[in-house]
Amino acid sequence: MADPVTIWTLDWVPEPPRGFVRDLRLRWTCEEAGLPYRIATVPFDDRETNHLDRQPFGQVPMLEDGDLRLFESGACVIHLARKGGKLIPADPKPEIEVLQWIMAALNSIEMVTMPWVVLTWSDEEFAGITGWLDKRLAQIEAVLAEREWLVGDTFTAADLIMADVLRVDLVRKHGDRPASEAYVRRVTDRPAFRKAHADQLAHFAVADVNRKEKSDG
Amino acid sequence: MADPVTIWTLDWVPEPPRGFVRDLRLRWTCEEAGLPYRIATVPFDDRETNHLDRQPFGQVPMLEDGDLRLFESGACVIHLARKGGKLIPADPKPEIEVLQWIMAALNSIEMVTMPWVVLTWSDEEFAGITGWLDKRLAQIEAVLAEREWLVGDTFTAADLIMADVLRVDLVRKHGDRPASEAYVRRVTDRPAFRKAHADQLAHFAVADVNRKEKSDG
Repeated sequence: MADPVTIWTLDWVPEPPRGFVRDLRLRWTCEEAGLPYRIATVPFDDRETNHLDRQPFGQVPMLEDGDLRLFESGACVIHLARKGGKLIPADPKPEIEVLQWIMAALNSIEMVTMPWVVLTWSDEEFAGITGWLDKRLAQIEAVLAEREWLVGDTFTAADLIMADVLRVDLVRKHGDRPASEAYVRRVTDRPAFRKAHADQLAHFAVADVNRKEKSDG
Repeated sequence: MADPVTIWTLDWVPEPPRGFVRDLRLRWTCEEAGLPYRIATVPFDDRETNHLDRQPFGQVPMLEDGDLRLFESGACVIHLARKGGKLIPADPKPEIEVLQWIMAALNSIEMVTMPWVVLTWSDEEFAGITGWLDKRLAQIEAVLAEREWLVGDTFTAADLIMADVLRVDLVRKHGDRPASEAYVRRVTDRPAFRKAHADQLAHFAVADVNRKEKSDG
């Protein structure tokens, strides 16, 4: 059996991001690809500076595989998919198409959805960004109305990233997009997603208990 | 001589985005890698819907290489860099590090800079997003203060994308970041960048004349 890779996440987070912290994308890829992995943590407190030596933006996840250390969930998913020989085709043409759709999820879609979500947190005006969001979500709806998967006739790493970008609650509730909704349901029904998701929720639930004991003690 | 690839851009754009339309990233990569290319255009008018059959978000650039059609500048740069055997190392470890920094540019940096720029266009409130921008720019400044290039000791596709994200005027003028500024200058001093940049400006200058003649006629 290969040595497990190590997925780094936070030791605790508040309720709202649970099930969405991006270590999920890495857990999920390992489950899809049958790769052994273990979870390691950096502290939530002072998280924006406490691991800048390992992640220049103070973010998680990070991935360790032997002497390779990676960050950026997109790159980590690509590395794990290649390692497992799953989710990224070997043929050059569909392979670059998978990279194209990963970039589309991270740059054309998430660049619009994430600031919109962040602006709703901070209660600032976000009218300007809402039209941009409406347009992008209508465009990806048109794509998903015509096909089951983004590349070829099978689930790839591109669907993993795109569905993870689209499954955010605020985004799903923003308008009626049946093809996108069916796509998110189809992808998140995968046993590998459900396992990874349940494991992340369990990880943070245990962290809650530990944190409470520490603050009570 | 290999058949030239085709880079698709718009036939005309207003002054402000000239020199920043993302076909530049593809022209630049071809110049770096010594790949022959030709420019083709889709109309600026009705640009958000007139080529949705070829680009689901109504954006440019698109790339054609034989029967391969790609969009997303990040994926196109990767394809061209691989094709030219330049800017992306062959060794797996630095190769995935280059992908990691391309993702960092497109998702961790541009996801913050682009909405901030867009919000300034539309004159909406953007206080909420400014703190996020300040933090990200300080973090990439810390990275660039310690090294000349993002991966190894040479310019790669990761620097091409990162510098293109950071060279936006509004972003450069937002605060004093000497390492980022030196990096942007170092990268944009490259003959391949200067050629690609001058060619894009010339393309749109010619388009101006044609458009004026059409509206005068």
